Amino acid sequence: MNLKSEIKKIARRAQEASRALLSVPLSTRNKVLREMATSLTKNKKAILRANRKDIAKAKRMGLSLPLIDRLALNQKRIKAMADSLLAVSGLSCPVDQVIKSWNRPNRLRIQKIRVPIGVIAIIYESRPNVTSDCIGLCFKTANAVILRGGSEAINSNLAVFKALKSVVKKHKLPDGIINLLSTTDRRAVDLLLKQDSYIDLVIPRGGEGLINRVVRLSRIPVIKHYKGICHVYVDEQADLNLAEKLCFNAKVQRPGVCNAMETMLVHKNIAQRFLPGMLHKFRLAGVEIRGCDATGKIVKGIKRASEKDFHTEYLDLILSVKVVKTLKEAIWHINNYGSRHSDAIVTKNQMNSLQFLRQVDSACVYVNASTRFTDGFQFGMGAEIGISTDKLHARGPMALEELTTYKYMVFGSGQIRK
Amino acid sequence: MNLKSEIKKIARRAQEASRALLSVPLSTRNKVLREMATSLTKNKKAILRANRKDIAKAKRMGLSLPLIDRLALNQKRIKAMADSLLAVSGLSCPVDQVIKSWNRPNRLRIQKIRVPIGVIAIIYESRPNVTSDCIGLCFKTANAVILRGGSEAINSNLAVFKALKSVVKKHKLPDGIINLLSTTDRRAVDLLLKQDSYIDLVIPRGGEGLINRVVRLSRIPVIKHYKGICHVYVDEQADLNLAEKLCFNAKVQRPGVCNAMETMLVHKNIAQRFLPGMLHKFRLAGVEIRGCDATGKIVKGIKRASEKDFHTEYLDLILSVKVVKTLKEAIWHINNYGSRHSDAIVTKNQMNSLQFLRQVDSACVYVNASTRFTDGFQFGMGAEIGISTDKLHARGPMALEELTTYKYMVFGSGQIRK
Repeated sequence: MNLKSEIKKIARRAQEASRALLSVPLSTRNKVLREMATSLTKNKKAILRANRKDIAKAKRMGLSLPLIDRLALNQKRIKAMADSLLAVSGLSCPVDQVIKSWNRPNRLRIQKIRVPIGVIAIIYESRPNVTSDCIGLCFKTANAVILRGGSEAINSNLAVFKALKSVVKKHKLPDGIINLLSTTDRRAVDLLLKQDSYIDLVIPRGGEGLINRVVRLSRIPVIKHYKGICHVYVDEQADLNLAEKLCFNAKVQRPGVCNAMETMLVHKNIAQRFLPGMLHKFRLAGVEIRGCDATGKIVKGIKRASEKDFHTEYLDLILSVKVVKTLKEAIWHINNYGSRHSDAIVTKNQMNSLQFLRQVDSACVYVNASTRFTDGFQFGMGAEIGISTDKLHARGPMALEELTTYKYMVFGSGQIRK
Repeated sequence: MNLKSEIKKIARRAQEASRALLSVPLSTRNKVLREMATSLTKNKKAILRANRKDIAKAKRMGLSLPLIDRLALNQKRIKAMADSLLAVSGLSCPVDQVIKSWNRPNRLRIQKIRVPIGVIAIIYESRPNVTSDCIGLCFKTANAVILRGGSEAINSNLAVFKALKSVVKKHKLPDGIINLLSTTDRRAVDLLLKQDSYIDLVIPRGGEGLINRVVRLSRIPVIKHYKGICHVYVDEQADLNLAEKLCFNAKVQRPGVCNAMETMLVHKNIAQRFLPGMLHKFRLAGVEIRGCDATGKIVKGIKRASEKDFHTEYLDLILSVKVVKTLKEAIWHINNYGSRHSDAIVTKNQMNSLQFLRQVDSACVYVNASTRFTDGFQFGMGAEIGISTDKLHARGPMALEELTTYKYMVFGSGQIRK
């Protein structure tokens, strides 16, 4: 069978399976999730063996150490994957919830009910734990899933997938419920993105190149998990000790993640008092500063930030710094250089905080807290499939509820339209 | 200026305007909507004059009578457009609603708030009332809008637009809040669909060709208002008098709309009793029947339905009829031939109705009521921008709430991530 018909067949079978899944009760789904966790633990030797193959190849190909680290599995990481499946099995499920219901004057009763989306395709890179996390969250919400991982992790992903699939088979659930493309042919992704008759949603998780390619080629709705160019704005009326603590946390606590601060904005009236101490603290922590001209006048010997810097997600111990004349300029900067992810204001002035919250067009906007809280677990959702930087369907942390859609169930007793 | 930079400029200015709109209070927006209604009435002579130009051209080009009717304006239709703007000004607005709010153990307070989507592009055909309806609904919800109507209605659309825009200008609101492309160059649509940095959502409203082209070319999220291949399934345990009344209403009351029935499915055990009377009634009303083989055996002299018929949205007094062996087959048929719009079961059996409601993958599923109720007004939403046949973000009737997204506002007192 050629690749085109193979991909189409996988997508069609996933749709059939997603419909069959509608009749699988939550108690069964939770039981399967628990057994999937057990199966991961039972098969850990095979998974680690497959992972060693990927690591060896990655080393031969000269992949960077951080990339190899993201790829690597060990006993502890496999246990974390199993624990995560157990945790998901224990969460309450949004499917079948009545969102609202009302009666019409003609006595039609309308219920708006949460239902699974259907078939979800997830295209990702590197980390093999994404394989089990995504299968867990999609299966919990009765969605069929088609996974396409990076070629660098293909052996690890296939081994994880095999361990989970065996449980699906044991329970005689439809075969198409969980799928992992076993080919690393790049054309498979292009073909997958054309299956809009069968696939309801595509979630790309990875670098900018991957996401742009998916958006360009997809006929299926896409929810992007895009970069995080997050800002903290230190207002004229900020508590400067608090500001120092929050900015430090937002940049340094874990610089390699999407909700870390990349640009610090400082109001001109407090820049002279705030910047010297703050930047000194950053430099002691090994943070490279790239500042605007005004920053450079206040603190000597720092590198100048280019226009490009303010558009950059460093994911590293580097920070752009800009002095702004007004709150309005800070908001303008964030809306024009940011990525609509997470942005914070530090201020004691309530009017300023409200203006910031209202006018900054980002998924999560903070007053007097670190941007690092943008996360499904930190938000109390109990899970996370990623952080949407899109505005349609799901925005910010995506968990179980965001993997559902709704339908209207209308109960009549013979009503006709006049 | 060339077309490419012109389209980009319009999109960029719309985004700027959408941000400024966040500071325009609801009371002002409602006042503007009321004045827009007045302005339509005041400018009705100019609008009717422009409309006569379009009609004359349409006649010269030999457009069909129904198309010309959809294009035509008169005093009554302009009054209906003005009334609709007044009605929208009176509706409560979902923007700024708190969807939910909660506290975290670390005392972070999280609010999930409804906000405007931003910039919405609407690409439509024929009816000039869509121009004022879409402007009204988008402006109410503080979204900027870019309209692209059909070339056949360009003079009418421009005249309506001019009347509404004058109110925006009078109130010194940002110019980019409402936009109508004045060019009929087809390339303008292609260019518009690439402005994903500025436009947040595209809604195509029109024929299959238009929608497919938009989906293929767009880098912006699209919500499709696709065709309605709606079914009524008459179950083995239906009240046959009720079934006759509902099927007749679903097909005949207004056959040219998307929520009218296109295919009637009948359980084999009641087909012999139900079909002769039902089809007789349909034929008296001028409905052409295209039946499956089993239908043809029960009622003589009817045309055979082809495979293609079951995929067809007739929008006319034509009906496909199929006898099915089981409820399961009915559900399978709907999921495979339908368009996920509106489908109904007629039955007295509660188990059957629940199975149907759960397993039919459509936006609106009915028990013992006509599919004709799928409509924003009939659902009690007070407005309608269309019926989404997509599953992401908005499904079924789309009104004000569906023109919003949300953001998380997080209120802290110095919380940092440990």
